[in-house]
Amino acid sequence: MAVYTQVSAEALGDFLTRFDVGELVSFKGIAEGVENSNYLVETTRDRFILTLYEKRVAAADLPFFMALLDHLAERGQPVPPAIADREGREIHELCGRPACLIRFLPGVSLSEPTAEQARAAGTAMGKMHAALTDFDLARENTMGVEHWQPLFDKCGKSLNEISQGLYDDLGFQLDEVLSAWPAETQMPRSVIHADLFPDNVLMLGDDVTGLIDFYFACTDFRAYDIAVMHSAWSFDNEGRRFDREIGNALLDGYQKIVPFEAAERAALVDLARGACIRFLLSRAWDWLNTPADAMVTRKDPMAYWRRLETYDAMDGLFA
Amino acid sequence: MAVYTQVSAEALGDFLTRFDVGELVSFKGIAEGVENSNYLVETTRDRFILTLYEKRVAAADLPFFMALLDHLAERGQPVPPAIADREGREIHELCGRPACLIRFLPGVSLSEPTAEQARAAGTAMGKMHAALTDFDLARENTMGVEHWQPLFDKCGKSLNEISQGLYDDLGFQLDEVLSAWPAETQMPRSVIHADLFPDNVLMLGDDVTGLIDFYFACTDFRAYDIAVMHSAWSFDNEGRRFDREIGNALLDGYQKIVPFEAAERAALVDLARGACIRFLLSRAWDWLNTPADAMVTRKDPMAYWRRLETYDAMDGLFA
Repeated sequence: MAVYTQVSAEALGDFLTRFDVGELVSFKGIAEGVENSNYLVETTRDRFILTLYEKRVAAADLPFFMALLDHLAERGQPVPPAIADREGREIHELCGRPACLIRFLPGVSLSEPTAEQARAAGTAMGKMHAALTDFDLARENTMGVEHWQPLFDKCGKSLNEISQGLYDDLGFQLDEVLSAWPAETQMPRSVIHADLFPDNVLMLGDDVTGLIDFYFACTDFRAYDIAVMHSAWSFDNEGRRFDREIGNALLDGYQKIVPFEAAERAALVDLARGACIRFLLSRAWDWLNTPADAMVTRKDPMAYWRRLETYDAMDGLFA
Repeated sequence: MAVYTQVSAEALGDFLTRFDVGELVSFKGIAEGVENSNYLVETTRDRFILTLYEKRVAAADLPFFMALLDHLAERGQPVPPAIADREGREIHELCGRPACLIRFLPGVSLSEPTAEQARAAGTAMGKMHAALTDFDLARENTMGVEHWQPLFDKCGKSLNEISQGLYDDLGFQLDEVLSAWPAETQMPRSVIHADLFPDNVLMLGDDVTGLIDFYFACTDFRAYDIAVMHSAWSFDNEGRRFDREIGNALLDGYQKIVPFEAAERAALVDLARGACIRFLLSRAWDWLNTPADAMVTRKDPMAYWRRLETYDAMDGLFA
């Protein structure tokens, strides 16, 4: 959420000459996305996002992400593909970092989406999944179910520094979720976004204008994607207040495009519990490894513990 | 250089209805300016900068800054005036902060301006000063000459933590500059920008398209403004390499519009030494009061000590 690599106007002006995009008119470092450096770039022709990939995105994964965005954009999905230079290359280097020039999309990320907006976002995810049935590449979910126990063990008893008893409580939940987790063949797998929080959906009014920040995209259960989304959208930030109307609108919007199979529908609560464990653990790890006085805002891991408790008390996601 | 106050899309959408500027299409937090929160805002009609004023800008000073920008904009100067709402107000409140919606200006801040670009920037300052001869408001220079000895004393012997011997060396220079400093009546005073670093000049090619970040603007010697500019533009960042060609181009560009009076010309070196002391002291204070591991980049105070030594060895700014 900051600009880590400073790009000079002169270096950017040179960089843009590789592309057929006009000349530099303005650029501003923007506070957005996962830990990359992003600039909003305006040329005499159009606007773009320039992304320099910092340590959290592996350069080796970029071809996968770019192929994914191209595939979706070619099928009319509202995703921001990278711009190819005159030689057809999308992945470049600038200031010692892998860099892409990406189409700018209009729209704003909502802080308090309504049920109608959640319905539209669910539908947008459904259309994205439908457009991916013929996408052939795969990428491991490096934050997927196999990684939760090892990350839990790495955090260890320090979890109790976040909240007294969290180590035991989360350990118990983790055991339950792992034993309930579907087998690979039990339901459809697909490339998924895996992080479609309201931050990553651009909207104008009730219309979705952009799905962004695909840098956690990976291969996993298709229904896990909507479970992640449900856990992110249907609660307030602190995870205290569950809004069933929002949650139902998301699921309804989604299943209009991709009807749930029986196994998916039956597993939704466990997938949502898994999503809570995934975000709780990554936030806990960051929390335990970020100094309290650092300028980076640490996200509260317990906001996902509260969600987990809510799901634990539910029979199913649909009321 | 970060976004301190988070504004939601919903709050911004509401805020914009006060103005006749169209509807919100996009907004991004940008890393820019002194310690304010800035957003680049796009509506169905135009683009704007939304600034929320954080602690470094006193709310009581905002009417002065806004009157200054209006005055300059009315006289065709490339400055970004605040947009008035339907009731004529320019200064608002948003998310508990004083806030202004400001016209967006094209152009980029250069990292390595050429002599021709420096000439254009000097001319732009000259035109700005010429446009201010009939501006009646005044504001104390809170970083002006009367404040250097107190700030030096507040830093005290801790200056030696920045560089061994800096306390004595800077004390000696400060005494010299204070005794050489012109009397108030000795040369023209004006409202000045007081911080016209390359960061604060937007350019397209060799043309100046914007003068921005007027939040240090104050009443002081007119020639002190060009001295500040000279110390910022004519050296590399570290203050090691002086580029006389750039310095002369700046002064030449300026005096085409506002010819130096004899007293100004004679005092330029001392004014530039004063500028070095001003930036050295504010950087030293920040350095001594910012933890080394904070995410904020501390600017090297010694970059201004090196400039000060260069000016100390000069007979005059013009070769």
